[in-house]
Parts: sequence; C-alpha cells; structure tokens
Amino acid sequence: MIRVKDPVVLLKIITRFIDRQMGVTHVAVILYDKKRGAYTLIDSKGEGGAKIPIGYVKVPADNPIVNFFKSSHNGAFARREALVYKEIDPIQNFEILVNKKEGRAIHYEDIKKQMNYLRAAVCVPSFYKKELIGILILGEKLSGDVYHEEEISLFVTLANDVAMAVKNAELIHDLRTAYEKEHSLFINTSIALATAIDARDRYTHGHSERVSHYSLVIVKELIDSGKMQFDREFMETVQLSGLLHDVGKIGIRDEILNKPAKLTGEEFEIMKTHVKIGASIVKPVKGLKHLEDGILYHHERFDGGGYPFGLKGKDIPIIGRIVSVADTYDTIVTARSYKEAEAAEAAFEEMKRSSGAQLDPEIVEAFHRAYKKGKITRREYLSFDFSKIH
Amino acid sequence: MIRVKDPVVLLKIITRFIDRQMGVTHVAVILYDKKRGAYTLIDSKGEGGAKIPIGYVKVPADNPIVNFFKSSHNGAFARREALVYKEIDPIQNFEILVNKKEGRAIHYEDIKKQMNYLRAAVCVPSFYKKELIGILILGEKLSGDVYHEEEISLFVTLANDVAMAVKNAELIHDLRTAYEKEHSLFINTSIALATAIDARDRYTHGHSERVSHYSLVIVKELIDSGKMQFDREFMETVQLSGLLHDVGKIGIRDEILNKPAKLTGEEFEIMKTHVKIGASIVKPVKGLKHLEDGILYHHERFDGGGYPFGLKGKDIPIIGRIVSVADTYDTIVTARSYKEAEAAEAAFEEMKRSSGAQLDPEIVEAFHRAYKKGKITRREYLSFDFSKIH
Repeated sequence: MIRVKDPVVLLKIITRFIDRQMGVTHVAVILYDKKRGAYTLIDSKGEGGAKIPIGYVKVPADNPIVNFFKSSHNGAFARREALVYKEIDPIQNFEILVNKKEGRAIHYEDIKKQMNYLRAAVCVPSFYKKELIGILILGEKLSGDVYHEEEISLFVTLANDVAMAVKNAELIHDLRTAYEKEHSLFINTSIALATAIDARDRYTHGHSERVSHYSLVIVKELIDSGKMQFDREFMETVQLSGLLHDVGKIGIRDEILNKPAKLTGEEFEIMKTHVKIGASIVKPVKGLKHLEDGILYHHERFDGGGYPFGLKGKDIPIIGRIVSVADTYDTIVTARSYKEAEAAEAAFEEMKRSSGAQLDPEIVEAFHRAYKKGKITRREYLSFDFSKIH
Repeated sequence: MIRVKDPVVLLKIITRFIDRQMGVTHVAVILYDKKRGAYTLIDSKGEGGAKIPIGYVKVPADNPIVNFFKSSHNGAFARREALVYKEIDPIQNFEILVNKKEGRAIHYEDIKKQMNYLRAAVCVPSFYKKELIGILILGEKLSGDVYHEEEISLFVTLANDVAMAVKNAELIHDLRTAYEKEHSLFINTSIALATAIDARDRYTHGHSERVSHYSLVIVKELIDSGKMQFDREFMETVQLSGLLHDVGKIGIRDEILNKPAKLTGEEFEIMKTHVKIGASIVKPVKGLKHLEDGILYHHERFDGGGYPFGLKGKDIPIIGRIVSVADTYDTIVTARSYKEAEAAEAAFEEMKRSSGAQLDPEIVEAFHRAYKKGKITRREYLSFDFSKIH
C-alpha cells in the first residue's frame, strides 16, 4: 500500500508494474472523476508498446461493466470481485441483471461485448465501502495462458489499494483545503477589522496592512542576511502583530484620536494607552496571545525614551523593534507628498538619522536593504471611507 | 487495507484475525507512541485464551529487537523484512550489529534472548518509509510447524498496512487539529474584535457575543420545531452575523455613539448608518460576504418602519429578522435591573407586545420556546473596560 498525494500517480505505478512484470497485452484504468461526475479512462499501457489514447476518455453512464459492478445483484462473479471474460458462459449466465439503483437492465451479452471492445480479459472493480471508485482492465496474458486465481487476487488487492489511496487523498485534500480556507478567513477578517479600526483615524487608510507587510519584509531580510534566525511561526506572529499593532486605538476617543491640533500632555498620556489597550484585547484570546509583544512594545524607543515602559536597546523585544521600524516608515512615507520613490528614500534617510535614538539601527539597515532589493511590493490595500456612507 | 480513525482498532482487528485464523500460540504488537516517545506493547492475544497483560507496557529504548529493525545494517534478515527465531543461527550469525543512529551494539544472542522472553517465533517490523512504526510479534504455530514463506509475506503486508494506517491517521488527525485550531482562532479573533468594538459603547459589554448565542439558539429552535430548514452553513452565518452585527459602530463618532442625551434627528440619521457601514466592512472580505444580510437588515421592522430600507414582513431576509429578535432581547434584558429570570420573562412579554410591529412573531415565539427549554446558557463573556487602562 503506497500513499500518494495524487492517486493518479499510484495508478500509473500500478499499471506500469502490471505491464512490465505480468506479461499482459495491455492494462487500463477507469476511474470515477468527481468533478466531471463520470467514469473516465485515465491510464492505459501495453499492446506491445502501443498505447490506447489516454486523454481522459469518458465512459458512458450506461456502460454495462460499470453497471455490473454498481449492481447489487452481480451474481456468481461477485464472489471473487472480478469479471473474467472466459468465465462468462453465454448459455449458463444468460440472464438479465437489474441495476436496482438506476433501474437499468444489464445483459451478460452486453458485458461480453463491452469487454471484447476493451480487449479485456479481466475487469477488477475498485471499491471503497459500497462506492465504485474505478475499474482495472487487463488484456490477455502474452503467453496466452488463463489468469491464475492468485493473480486475480493480486489485482483485487491492487484495486482495493487504489480505492483506499483515492479516498485517503480525497480526505486529505479536503482537510487541507478546509484548513487553508479557514486560515485565509482568519487573516482576511483580521485585515477587515484592522482596516475598519484604521478608518477612524482618517489619515491611515491601509496603514495596518502595510505595516504588516513591511514587518514581514524586515523579518525575511534578517533571515536572508543570516543575521538572525526565526521560524515560520514567528513570521506569522510578525505578520499579525503588524496588522493589529494599532488595534488598541479602538479604545481612544475620537476627540483625541482625530484632534487636528497638537495633543495636550494629558491627552497624549491617554493616546499612549493604545498599546496597553491593544495588548489587553489580544491577551485573553487563545491563539492571539503571542501578538502581545508586537503590540505592546512598538512605541518603545531604542534609547529608552519610548512608552509604555521606557525599555532600552535589546531589552525591547525584537518584534517590538521590527513593528516600530515598519510603523515609522509608513507614517513618514504617507505624510509626504513627494513621488513614491523619493518619499521612500527620504524616509530611510530620516530613519537612519534617528537610528540608535528612536529605532534599532540593524533593523533599519535590513529594511533599507530589502527595499533596495525590491522586496516591498505595491498593491491595493483594503480601505474604508465611512464618511461616504454617513 | 482498512482505513480506521484509530489505528489501534486496526491493530486489534489484525491481532484477532491472526489469533483466530492462523493457529498461533499468541500474537502481540509493539507500537511507537509519539506522545510518550517510546515503543509500547499495545495489544496481545492468545496463549490458549490467556492474555499477556496489555496495559501499555513500555519497551525499553535499548530493546535489541527495536534496535535491530532501526539499524540500517540488519544483515541477512533484511531481505524478507522479518526476524524468524529459527533462522537465527547462533554460530553463523554471531556477529555484532551496530545501530549507527544510536551507536549501540546489538548482538544476535540478545535478539534471541529477547525473542525467547517474548515467546516470539517471528517479529515483523512495521515501517513507514524509514520510520519504524511498530513490530508485530508472533508466537509459535499451534501445530508446531514452521511458518511458510507466504505466511510471513502476509504478516509483512499486514505490518505495512498498520504503518500506513498509523501514518494516515496521524496526518488526518494533524490536519483536522490544524483546521479546528484555525477555526477557533478565527471565531476567537472575531469575538475579541467585536467585543473591543462593543467596549466603545459603554453599555454593551458582551452584547455581540450574547446576540450571537441567542441568534443561534433561535435557529436551532426553528429547525427542531420543524418549521424551517437550515443547513450547517447557515448556522455558522447566523453565529457570525450575530457577533458582527454592530461592527459598523466603529464608523460612528463617540459624540453620537455615547451621547448621554437623546440624539437629534440628524444624529440619529448618522447612527442609523452603522448597518450600512457594517455591511461595507464584511462585503469585500472573501469568506465574510455572507454576513452582509444579518448586519444590514437587523434594524428593519416587521411593519416596514425600520431602516435602512423599510422592508416589510417576509421581505426582510430571515437572518435579519433573527438577529433583530436576539438584539432586542439583549437590549431589553441588560437595561433592566431585575433579577435575571424576571428580566427574561418581562423581555419576552414586551417583545410579544411589539410582535408583528417591530419583530417577526414566529421568531419571537421560537425564541421564547427555546428559553423555556433552558437553551439559553449563561456563561462568562469576554469584556473590555478600557477606561481602567486610561
């Protein structure tokens, strides 16, 4: 039993194995194609080197062999779970089979004709529970001998392995798809809600999504340059921390958040609480707790003059230093009215000047390198303008 | 090849099969237990009805049989992938094997002793790729005959099936766990952000989570009473729509959202836009678009006097009518200072009075029935109080 990502690969292995090892004129496989809702010929080998054209030949729904195996009354042949051409006695077995499910009559004569047409000496069904997954079709033996009981047993085993492989691959594929769908739903929902929160602060359309992107660019550059080692999990943490770094602004009143004039000392103290508020939002959520640091420490300064704790240098968790650089960059660039490239270069210059004071020089350097390598991609960010709805 | 959710079930089937059909003194299985990081005896049958105590007997890490199979130099016996006691010739095979990975020497004498101790005539490894998943242990044949080559082949096939079943079950389990983790992450993040949005409106702690719960209770009652048919997907939609029904409040200014006095006409018009703002937030998100209706229509009234469109009766999408009842109930109950049970009954009375005018009578009825059946569960809701951080 082989597990394969794509059961078609297994089928090709099996048909090749039978073709090479067992000395048959040809071997083919009919498989149920879920998407098409039909049985199709998907692999074929043999006929002394000549191949039956593969190219997904569709098998008609009323194919007598398919109907025979789908029928619950497939008579004497059910015992060995295979149809052997030479065992179908046109006199003895001349009877009408009824496929109860579809109410269609099946004549043994039709089965013989069909097997003749497919040059099939043996047809072996591939069942998963009561579901007919496919049919293995074998031509005559090159030696002209009849198939032994054990050979047919082997085919039955192989056909059952195919059914199992198909079903396992289906289940694994479905689970993977469901996981990926759920993951992007989680990310997209976070983006939408972060963007909605951004929208309260009228100058920050797309800000959180960009900070997330920049933070991730920084991490990748730090890894690529060999300076630091981070795992996949950390990259996800950075991406999400960037996205939700300002989530705490939800707890800041409009009059402070959107004040056109300079904030008073007291107002600024309230404004500063957004990092603690943000941390308090993610902290109780199972699966979001790891975002706490990126949110809490993104306003610390490298020289110790930041908030909320006034941590200094490497005492500031790395994720806080990364989000801080990304956040600062976006704030500078979006505040400028130059063309994009000029704004970026000016931002890096400004950031380098404040390196060591506000920002971690190493991270600013890494970000600048990544920028020069073209790692910052421009794209459409989600943005909301609720004033248009009011 | 059988696919089972729990490979241990497969093992029990296999050991029972061998015990009953093949006439052996006993059969046992040693399996690698990922959690324990050790090989353990997990099933044992035979010895004329007497059983070797199962109870997860741990096999020491330096067990010679385990080491033999783990070694890449397992000599002459590798060919048939099984250890046969009678084939181990103490003179001819007296050599030292080295388990390269763990640098331990293995003597054939030790293997014989160990097999003797386990009363094993044959040991068959269960490999997945190069990973030793387990070992099938077979006692002597009751007839006293030696095992035929074909019998050992069958054991090898069974052991390989076990390895495949174990690995498939592991992969499927891991994928399922990853999916479920991601799903609850999505739900929990939605709860946290909805709750954060709730927190701006100081009177609605836990409101969105409760509306989500009540909405789901209503849908289940409508299904149970046989009045309406909804699929699982719709139930998820209802749960999330309840959670995010007020997400649009993010776009309403504090001065209106938290105004202690009655809103002016103009202010109320702005307040009403929260349903459209909410719909505009979920609409562009792939995977959230289906929440649009529940958010957009939860302030429509059954008599046509609601907003944003003034839809009437059954023209209001059912999900809007459901969330509306849940929302109204929570608003009434949390505004009252009675004891919980009194508040609930008073709320249902009040809602029934406004049935047909504000609310859909059928849905109010269903909710009341569910309440009386005890379907509303009380629990701790997430809640934030940002004023404590300020």
